[in-house]
Amino acid sequence: MDDKDKLINLDDNSFSSDDEEVIKKPQQQQSLSSLPAINSNEIEASTSQSQPVFEKGTFDNAIDVPPLLDINAEAPEISEDITTQQISSNNLNHNHNHNHVQHDPEPVFHVRSRTSAAQAGNNHQAHIQYESLDYDVCDNTLFQDEQRKRLRDRFSLRTHVIRWIIFILIGIITALIASSIDIIIEELSEIKYKFLKQSVDDNVPMTDRNGDLALPFLWWILLSIVPVAIGATMVTYIEPITAGSGIPQVKSYLNGVKVPRIVRIKTLAVKAIGVITSVVGGLAGGKEGPMIHAGAVVAAGISQGKSTTFIKDFHIFKAFRDDHEKRDFVLGGAAAGVSAAFGAPIGGMLFSLEEAASFWNQNLIWRTLVASIISSFTLNIVLSAYHGLQDFTFTGLFNLGKFDQPLSFEYFELPLFMLLGVTGGLLGAAWNALNMRINKFRKRFVPWKVGKVFEAILVAILGVTMACTMIYFINDCRPLGNDPTIHPVQLFCEDNEYNAVAALWFQTPEATVRALFHDPPGSHKILTLAMFTLVYYVLSCATFGLNVSLGVFIPTALVGAAWGRLVAMLLFYVFPAAQFLHPGKYALIGAAANLGGVLRMTISLSVILMETTGIETSFFFPLIIALISAKWVGDYFNDGIYDTVIEVNNVPMLPWEPLPQYKGLTANEILSKPVVCIKLVDSAHYIYEMLRRCNHNGFPVVDNVVDDRRSEGRVCGIILRSQLIVILLKSLYVENKRFWLPETTIQTFRDVYPRYPSIKSVRPLDRKINYTVDLSTFMNPSPVRVNMHDSVPKIFNIFRALGLRHMLVINNENRIAGIITRRDFIYK
Amino acid sequence: MDDKDKLINLDDNSFSSDDEEVIKKPQQQQSLSSLPAINSNEIEASTSQSQPVFEKGTFDNAIDVPPLLDINAEAPEISEDITTQQISSNNLNHNHNHNHVQHDPEPVFHVRSRTSAAQAGNNHQAHIQYESLDYDVCDNTLFQDEQRKRLRDRFSLRTHVIRWIIFILIGIITALIASSIDIIIEELSEIKYKFLKQSVDDNVPMTDRNGDLALPFLWWILLSIVPVAIGATMVTYIEPITAGSGIPQVKSYLNGVKVPRIVRIKTLAVKAIGVITSVVGGLAGGKEGPMIHAGAVVAAGISQGKSTTFIKDFHIFKAFRDDHEKRDFVLGGAAAGVSAAFGAPIGGMLFSLEEAASFWNQNLIWRTLVASIISSFTLNIVLSAYHGLQDFTFTGLFNLGKFDQPLSFEYFELPLFMLLGVTGGLLGAAWNALNMRINKFRKRFVPWKVGKVFEAILVAILGVTMACTMIYFINDCRPLGNDPTIHPVQLFCEDNEYNAVAALWFQTPEATVRALFHDPPGSHKILTLAMFTLVYYVLSCATFGLNVSLGVFIPTALVGAAWGRLVAMLLFYVFPAAQFLHPGKYALIGAAANLGGVLRMTISLSVILMETTGIETSFFFPLIIALISAKWVGDYFNDGIYDTVIEVNNVPMLPWEPLPQYKGLTANEILSKPVVCIKLVDSAHYIYEMLRRCNHNGFPVVDNVVDDRRSEGRVCGIILRSQLIVILLKSLYVENKRFWLPETTIQTFRDVYPRYPSIKSVRPLDRKINYTVDLSTFMNPSPVRVNMHDSVPKIFNIFRALGLRHMLVINNENRIAGIITRRDFIYK
Repeated sequence: MDDKDKLINLDDNSFSSDDEEVIKKPQQQQSLSSLPAINSNEIEASTSQSQPVFEKGTFDNAIDVPPLLDINAEAPEISEDITTQQISSNNLNHNHNHNHVQHDPEPVFHVRSRTSAAQAGNNHQAHIQYESLDYDVCDNTLFQDEQRKRLRDRFSLRTHVIRWIIFILIGIITALIASSIDIIIEELSEIKYKFLKQSVDDNVPMTDRNGDLALPFLWWILLSIVPVAIGATMVTYIEPITAGSGIPQVKSYLNGVKVPRIVRIKTLAVKAIGVITSVVGGLAGGKEGPMIHAGAVVAAGISQGKSTTFIKDFHIFKAFRDDHEKRDFVLGGAAAGVSAAFGAPIGGMLFSLEEAASFWNQNLIWRTLVASIISSFTLNIVLSAYHGLQDFTFTGLFNLGKFDQPLSFEYFELPLFMLLGVTGGLLGAAWNALNMRINKFRKRFVPWKVGKVFEAILVAILGVTMACTMIYFINDCRPLGNDPTIHPVQLFCEDNEYNAVAALWFQTPEATVRALFHDPPGSHKILTLAMFTLVYYVLSCATFGLNVSLGVFIPTALVGAAWGRLVAMLLFYVFPAAQFLHPGKYALIGAAANLGGVLRMTISLSVILMETTGIETSFFFPLIIALISAKWVGDYFNDGIYDTVIEVNNVPMLPWEPLPQYKGLTANEILSKPVVCIKLVDSAHYIYEMLRRCNHNGFPVVDNVVDDRRSEGRVCGIILRSQLIVILLKSLYVENKRFWLPETTIQTFRDVYPRYPSIKSVRPLDRKINYTVDLSTFMNPSPVRVNMHDSVPKIFNIFRALGLRHMLVINNENRIAGIITRRDFIYK
Repeated sequence: MDDKDKLINLDDNSFSSDDEEVIKKPQQQQSLSSLPAINSNEIEASTSQSQPVFEKGTFDNAIDVPPLLDINAEAPEISEDITTQQISSNNLNHNHNHNHVQHDPEPVFHVRSRTSAAQAGNNHQAHIQYESLDYDVCDNTLFQDEQRKRLRDRFSLRTHVIRWIIFILIGIITALIASSIDIIIEELSEIKYKFLKQSVDDNVPMTDRNGDLALPFLWWILLSIVPVAIGATMVTYIEPITAGSGIPQVKSYLNGVKVPRIVRIKTLAVKAIGVITSVVGGLAGGKEGPMIHAGAVVAAGISQGKSTTFIKDFHIFKAFRDDHEKRDFVLGGAAAGVSAAFGAPIGGMLFSLEEAASFWNQNLIWRTLVASIISSFTLNIVLSAYHGLQDFTFTGLFNLGKFDQPLSFEYFELPLFMLLGVTGGLLGAAWNALNMRINKFRKRFVPWKVGKVFEAILVAILGVTMACTMIYFINDCRPLGNDPTIHPVQLFCEDNEYNAVAALWFQTPEATVRALFHDPPGSHKILTLAMFTLVYYVLSCATFGLNVSLGVFIPTALVGAAWGRLVAMLLFYVFPAAQFLHPGKYALIGAAANLGGVLRMTISLSVILMETTGIETSFFFPLIIALISAKWVGDYFNDGIYDTVIEVNNVPMLPWEPLPQYKGLTANEILSKPVVCIKLVDSAHYIYEMLRRCNHNGFPVVDNVVDDRRSEGRVCGIILRSQLIVILLKSLYVENKRFWLPETTIQTFRDVYPRYPSIKSVRPLDRKINYTVDLSTFMNPSPVRVNMHDSVPKIFNIFRALGLRHMLVINNENRIAGIITRRDFIYK
């Protein structure tokens, strides 16, 4: 073991110093590197530079090199100059690291860039927690052996059939969970609002304007804060990842970011209970986001055939235990979730498509569509049975109600729809900006867990108070008969009348949307709707970001429907002869515009709206006009709410297309180096020490190494941290090859998926200290390699299209020049 | 010009011999190569081996090397052995080529493979005509200059807006063309069938069973063969590419295959007239395929802002003149075409998606959807105006009619639907197989152009005769009142009755589908439908493949609807109490099953059917069950009809996923070599001669060339044939750099797109013979390079995901080892 001494030597010297110290002490570093250590320069250089990483989290193989250049798009000429200078200084640095003789003649430019900005703030630590998924299949010898076996024993067909079965199961189980959530919410809400109505009726005698509302108000508050408190406590103390909608998390996952704990069973349980309590508690939120998240968890759970939480392995679906397969299933699960939430199978498929289109192929689309359809069909059966219907007319949980007659429109309404879209875009952008500010405030001033729970309770009380104030002060009585709610409250009204304001508030937000779409003209006063819009706008903005499981779709649609209907009523007030001013139609357009302005998920959104309201193809055009105007106007100001959440959380999402600032850059300018490498046949001890010392997840395998300078070796493959740990754990050494070779397959590596043991679980090597590992069997022999002079937009496309985690950069001699990971594209 | 003499020398010696001769005379070849020619070995080796290519067509950069190995999936072990042997023998060959001293000690294995099979048959020549599209953007210095300019003067936003405008224009114009076709067909058919009805009524007096049908029969034949003859003549003599549906061609184009003349204006004109004449002529075909093709042509035409046919350049949209942009527009055009043909905007988007998903991104989906919706809206306006409707209820050209009440189904019907699906799969597979046989027969026995026209006329006569026979012999009179056709024929029936058989035949196939879906129960006899199914099955099979412009969608739907309805009627006959046996419902399921069995385009098909019939989301499930069963059963036997057509035409389509036979192969085993390369700074004469002598389309640019052995140089980029020709034409030499440098931009190269001049248009160099070309400005500096040891499934994924045309294979020293193009993946 010739490496050992030097490594231990290194340990003694350099690992005690933290990042800043090292940067301040170049001389010491120099002296360290000039030790005759065979591998010291790379290990030392990389580890000392990336010290904070070691302490606070792990990520792919990116090393915190100082920002190399300004990628500021406004001044490309300047950036070019800097680039050139940087390359030279950078090259010099590089040489200097390895040759230990040259002196660095040029200063390093610390220019403004996204990296430096991110590193300066405390955001820097936040994004370190995110790793990437290994979407790239490791095409090693073991894998090929399995492939060959599959071909022989028709294993391939079996795998294919099982995959279909899993997708069908995902559809069924997601729908069952969704319908359970729905039924429980419906039952509990029924009890709650029935009780409140009773209380109002008891305390406010008929037609008595001076009745005492205090007791019902207190009851209402109590019935709101108890469930909200339960939900917020669970979310805060048990599983904080379940807060919010879940769609941003699923979106990040599908983009290839490993969001911790996102697809666990515990997450599912907390999310389900959380959403039930929050909706029953009367918070301004919907259940569709959590349902999509639930679908994703179900998919991830079923497809693995085991639960790590319950330490139970069913020994089925073993072939699907890797990130590649799992992510495909999660895609199907998300689609099934959308389908179950909205009763919109095509919308569900398109939702998945919109979020992860770069990894699609025809078969996957097809399986996803089937999962969606199965899901919506199962939901249909369950809810039809629950509602005691004979035929399957109860479609979806959030069916926005079918319009009785086909909606028609006049040509001159089209500009009006466009104006509504623009309004939606403005309101949506303002909502997003306001929400972001509220959440920043929240993050800053409510850091304690108990404070988060109290905050949720406070917002619940605020909502009830505002509702009560509206009911108390606005006098809007309407004749009974065409009542939109199940429990019409007579409060302050004549006999045969009901209180239209109370009707808006005494039901779940979802039912209110339906009411706004389908109530006959003249169901509300203008003042009622105006106040309702305002209150709900503020309320929903304050709610999203609380530590409760709630989606943003329904409140957004509700606000839009309210102001859409309001516009129609105002116009009708001005032009009483305009018969085309169907208030339900304008409510729909308003909802579309507001959704477009807040969410910006235009494609799936338009289809979901079409499917949930059963509108004709011919009304698709007005809908699209409103949506597209809203999206464009909104995009001018800020990102959609889901993207905002993702950005606030510093999730390293890859954009759809190369960023403009990539133009003119080459791989050389964004890569991270030096890279920690392993020799094709390397000593067990070196691997062990390397894994202990650095937390990278992928290591290039090199041969043709001169003087043990591994980071200059010639690339022949890549191996993952998890694989190396399995090799050490199972003692897959060259010296005892005869023991393990016959029974070691790719399944040996899959079995530990997804919670790989840490290097700490590997016992010190002791007697095997001189053993060697031959990586040629285990490594991925076809890593994606790019040349250091390749342009960044090009390599970004490769990275994005193949869903890579590591991309090796080589020089003209096929020697390793650096490594590029997700981080390098986003933060440089 | 030191190359000159040797090249001319080569010319004198080797280029007179054809392929076989060279192979038979290794000694002569050897002596040639052993000339001290600096570049002779590669030019000679490549050109002599690929001699047939030079004569018959061009393709990317694939050289006809003998097939290297058996990639037969059934015997992987054997293939492995061969592989190993082959590699060694192959390497030896390679060395031998360059060293000219070694003797080849091992024989070359000529094992069975797809390549050799294809090369043995006469199919070999067929696929040579197809080239690939350059989907990869050439990221050279000129391009980057333009990008920088764009960033500066907000050119980027302008381009973005223009792109949107083009998509909207595509939607509008496609819809206008589609509606014109539709209106003309409707008017002409109306005249035709009105006249025929009159003729029948005149010649067959009321209730006279012995009336003389001869005259109406002759009239019918005449009115059929005249339009069919016109259409077939135009297609055959003017533009043969317009024959058939057009969907396979568009599909190939979107896959990245350059199908000659597919997107020209002449093609559009012939296709439009062709489809009108064929449908009016009464052939068993539909107009949807041609409409999709029309959309593609419109898109390609508009987006270029110029017409090469009319030699008219509008000097607009100049930034979009490359394959990358054009193909995105064609995608939108195809979607708009589907949308216009079916009135199904989402179906249109999904159709495009299903065909070209690997190149998608979110923005493209969104633009495509907008084009679809604009198209269906425009169509709606035009057709509403034409039909004199006030609101826009006339959706789409092929609206299959909205079902009056929501279709419902019972649980026990689901297995029945599955059985219908299986039947559809079997019938569809049989139809495809039969059609292929008919077309093979046709190809063999009807090679003359005039024969093709007569064949079309013959099929038209056959159709009329069969129809008349059915009408004459089957007595199926139904009471008037619920008549499905506009011109009820009383023929042989009582007063107040009409002839149900004549009703099926006396209208366009499209109207018949609508009738079968929506006619009330009891509109037909069982015998009528049974005979009709049989006749139409045979007739449609004989029609598809004729030299006329016709789609296959409507006849397939018609056959399915007929047997679906028949099944319902038979079941109702057996179980008269079964009220669920709604014949229209079963006709719909039958149509879906038959379409699934023939076309296998499951995703878009299901959505199109949903959109055209306005069925509820809840009925989506039965539809999917039928479709999926049909697809799976059909896939067991053969490919879908479009894929069959593509395969018969030897179009090198890339599959969705790596083929099973790729497993275990490395790039080294499928690459083509030696590669014709150019030095970074090379002589104009060499380039000129090289372009004259070989027809490859991409040439690696190399430096570090020792002894002018270019094909062993180190890769630094790739340059396309078209770029080289422009360089020669415009004299972009180093020596006269000061003249051209200021005004040469990327637009110089775009201006000649898409019909690049041939090398013959370059005048001999004469005075510039000693000039040199510096390719560093023009070449693509970031070609996709893979290592020769990379696994084929991996590199296939890269090739597919990025839509590449050339993929360079390098060895460990970054020197060129070979080149991989579309052909190498498909024919090896």
